Amino acid sequence: MVNFAHRMASVHRSFIREILKAAVDPTIISFAGGLPNPRFFPVRELEEAARSVLSRDGDSALQYATTEGYPPLREKIAERYAARGTKVAPEDILILNGSQQGLDLVAKVFIDAGDSVLVESPSYLAAIQCFGLFEPHFRALPLDTGGVSIPALTEALRTESPKLFYAIPNFQNPSGISYTEARRRETSRAMAGSTTVLVEDDPYGEIRFIGRDLPSIRTCMAEDGSGTERAVLLGTFSKIVSPGMRLGWLCAGKDVMENLVVAKQAADLHSNELTQRIVHRYLCSADVDGYIARIRAAYKRQRDAMVGAVHAFFPKEVSCTEPEGGMFLWMTLPNGMSALSFFEKALAQKVTFVPGSAFFTDGSGENTLRLNFSNCDVATIEAGMERLSRVYAAM
Amino acid sequence: MVNFAHRMASVHRSFIREILKAAVDPTIISFAGGLPNPRFFPVRELEEAARSVLSRDGDSALQYATTEGYPPLREKIAERYAARGTKVAPEDILILNGSQQGLDLVAKVFIDAGDSVLVESPSYLAAIQCFGLFEPHFRALPLDTGGVSIPALTEALRTESPKLFYAIPNFQNPSGISYTEARRRETSRAMAGSTTVLVEDDPYGEIRFIGRDLPSIRTCMAEDGSGTERAVLLGTFSKIVSPGMRLGWLCAGKDVMENLVVAKQAADLHSNELTQRIVHRYLCSADVDGYIARIRAAYKRQRDAMVGAVHAFFPKEVSCTEPEGGMFLWMTLPNGMSALSFFEKALAQKVTFVPGSAFFTDGSGENTLRLNFSNCDVATIEAGMERLSRVYAAM
Repeated sequence: MVNFAHRMASVHRSFIREILKAAVDPTIISFAGGLPNPRFFPVRELEEAARSVLSRDGDSALQYATTEGYPPLREKIAERYAARGTKVAPEDILILNGSQQGLDLVAKVFIDAGDSVLVESPSYLAAIQCFGLFEPHFRALPLDTGGVSIPALTEALRTESPKLFYAIPNFQNPSGISYTEARRRETSRAMAGSTTVLVEDDPYGEIRFIGRDLPSIRTCMAEDGSGTERAVLLGTFSKIVSPGMRLGWLCAGKDVMENLVVAKQAADLHSNELTQRIVHRYLCSADVDGYIARIRAAYKRQRDAMVGAVHAFFPKEVSCTEPEGGMFLWMTLPNGMSALSFFEKALAQKVTFVPGSAFFTDGSGENTLRLNFSNCDVATIEAGMERLSRVYAAM
Repeated sequence: MVNFAHRMASVHRSFIREILKAAVDPTIISFAGGLPNPRFFPVRELEEAARSVLSRDGDSALQYATTEGYPPLREKIAERYAARGTKVAPEDILILNGSQQGLDLVAKVFIDAGDSVLVESPSYLAAIQCFGLFEPHFRALPLDTGGVSIPALTEALRTESPKLFYAIPNFQNPSGISYTEARRRETSRAMAGSTTVLVEDDPYGEIRFIGRDLPSIRTCMAEDGSGTERAVLLGTFSKIVSPGMRLGWLCAGKDVMENLVVAKQAADLHSNELTQRIVHRYLCSADVDGYIARIRAAYKRQRDAMVGAVHAFFPKEVSCTEPEGGMFLWMTLPNGMSALSFFEKALAQKVTFVPGSAFFTDGSGENTLRLNFSNCDVATIEAGMERLSRVYAAM
C-alpha cells in the first residue's frame, strides 16, 4: 500500500470523484462531467427491452456467462461498425464494463514500471490516472487543430520504443479537437513497423454534428497495409444509450485479445449479462439511428449556445475550440491566469468545470479549462455561462 | 506484453474459461462451475424491480454515478449484515462488479512483484490467477477440517511479513471446509499486530444448511480488540440473487478504502447503477429471506444426493468432504491416481468437474477434484455421478 499511495501521489489530484459527487447536487450547474443529457435517455425503450429479456430468457440472462461477452451483442457491434465503414469481426470484440475498463486491462497487460507511454497533450484525465497506477514514463505529444504532431510522434516512436500510444481522434476529451483524415493516415504510417500498441479511444464518434465521418486510425492501418495486429479500438454505449449501465467494448487482434481476455477474466470474470442482453434487445428493436440523430441535433444546439456564450459574455482574450461533435469545448484564458483559481471561485457560485492542468502530464495548461456542453439544456448553458463570465470579470 | 505472457505462464492453466464455455452447452452435465441453480432465480421479481426503477427513477439509474456505489444499496447491505450480527457501516462498503473485482483491486493496491501472499491450500482458482498476475510469492497454508493451520499461519506472519492473507472461512471453494468458531478467533488473534491485510472472502455465507451462523473473522477481530483496520471482507449477490448481474461488494476501514476507491475509479469509474438500483428495489420489496431459505433447502437436497452418490457408486477408497453449506464438495482419489486424466475421460463422456491441482499453488493435489452440487437438480446429479463412477471404474 505504501507503493500504491506513492503511485497515486504522482498522479494529478482526482477531479472526477468531485465531479461525480457534484453531479448529484441539483443546485450546481455542472459543465464539469462528461455526462450525457438525461432528457434523451431511452428509458421506456430500455424498460421494454428489460421486460422482454427477463420474460423470454431470464434464466440465461441472470446466470454466469462467457468472459468475451454475449455473442449476439458482439455481432451487433460489428454490424454497426460495418455500416460506418469499419471492418471488425465479432470475435475481435471483447465486452467491457464501460470502455474505461479497456484502459485498465491494456495498462495491466502492457505497462511495466518505467515503460514509455505516449499521450496526446492534453489527454483524458481518467486515462492518465489509470495508466499512472502502473508507473509508466509519460511522453506528451503536442496536439494542433488537425491532430497529434506527426514529427513528435515519429521521433518518440524512434527513440523511446513506447509500449502504448493513446489517442482520441474524434472530438477529443478534453480539447474537442478531431484528427483530419490526412493526419489519421499519417499517424497510421508513422506507427507501421513499430512494436507500439495503438490504443484508439472513440467514445464520441457517433456524436458528430458537423462534417462527415472519418475513418478510424485502425481502418487506415488496415487500408495502407500497416496491419491492425497492434491496434486496440475502444467503444462505448455510454454516450448513445446510457453511461449508468457501464457497457463498452474493445476491438483487438488475436494475440493481443488472448492476453486481454485473461486480464478481463481475472478482473471480474465477465461483464453484466443482463445488461448486455437488454442493450442488444434495445439495439434490435428501437430506432437507434433516429435516436442518435436527435442527440446530435440537440448537442449541436447546446454546443452552439456555449460557443455563442463564450463570444457574447467573455472578453476577446478568452478563446475556445469549436468542436465538430462530442461533448466538450476547451477554453484558453490569457497567459498567467489560473484556471484553478477560476474553478474555486466558480464552485463558490455553484458552477463547475474542470481546470485544464488536470489533463496534462507535465503540469502545463494552467490557463486552460474544459467545458462540457452535453449535460445541460440551452437555457442552463446560457445561465451558467453568464454566471461564469461574472466570476471571470470579478477576477 | 512479454512480461504479461510470462506472468500467465506461471499461473495454472485456466479451467474457468473452459467451464464457462461448457456451461452454455446443454448436452454436458457440469459439476465444474460455481453456478447457482437457475431454477431459483427470482426472474419475475427482478422484472418487476427493473420496471419500477426505470419508470420511477430512469434518468438517475441510467446516468453516471459515484464510485462508491448507490447509497441506499450500501445501507441495505449494512442492514442485512447487522441482522446476522456483523457490524459494518454503509460508508465502509464499496460496490463492485462481482466480488471477484475486489480481489483485483486488493491485488492492485497491495501486491508488488515478489511480495509474499498467504493462501489456503487448496484455494479459489480465480483468486490465485488474479493475484498471480501481480507476481507475488505464494505461501500455501495447510487446511484441516476445522480451518487453516494456526501454527503455519503464525510462522508465516512472523517470518515473511506477507502483504495479504486470503481466506474463505465459510464452505470454502474448493474444499467445502468451514472454519470452526474457535479457529476464527485463533486466526483473529494470530493476525493481531501484523501489518498483513486479511482478505476474507464470503460468497457463500448465507447458504448454510447445517448448523448455525458463525462470526466472520472480521467480527472476531472487532470483538477481541485486534482491530479491523486491515481487514477486507468481500460479499456478493451472485449466490443469493444472480451471478449474471455481477454485483458484489467489499467492506474495508477508512485508510484501506481510500486506496481501493481510487483503484475502482481507475478500473471502471463505478459499478452498474441500474443494476444496483434493481437489486436494491428487489431486496426492499421481495421476501428475500424466504427465497434464500428455499435455496438452502434445495441445495441441501442436492448436496445430500451428491454425497450419497459418492458413497453408493464409488469404491471406498474414494472419499469426499460433507460441507455444511455452499456449493462444492471435494473428492479425493487414491494416491497416485490422476484427476486430470479422470477429467479428460469424463469430458469425453460429457460430464465435467475441476481437477484439484488447479487450486494449489505448489502443483500438489493431483488426486483431488472439485464437484459442484448447486447447479443441477437431484436427478441430474444422480445421473451425472453414476456416469462419472463408470468412467472411474474404467480407469
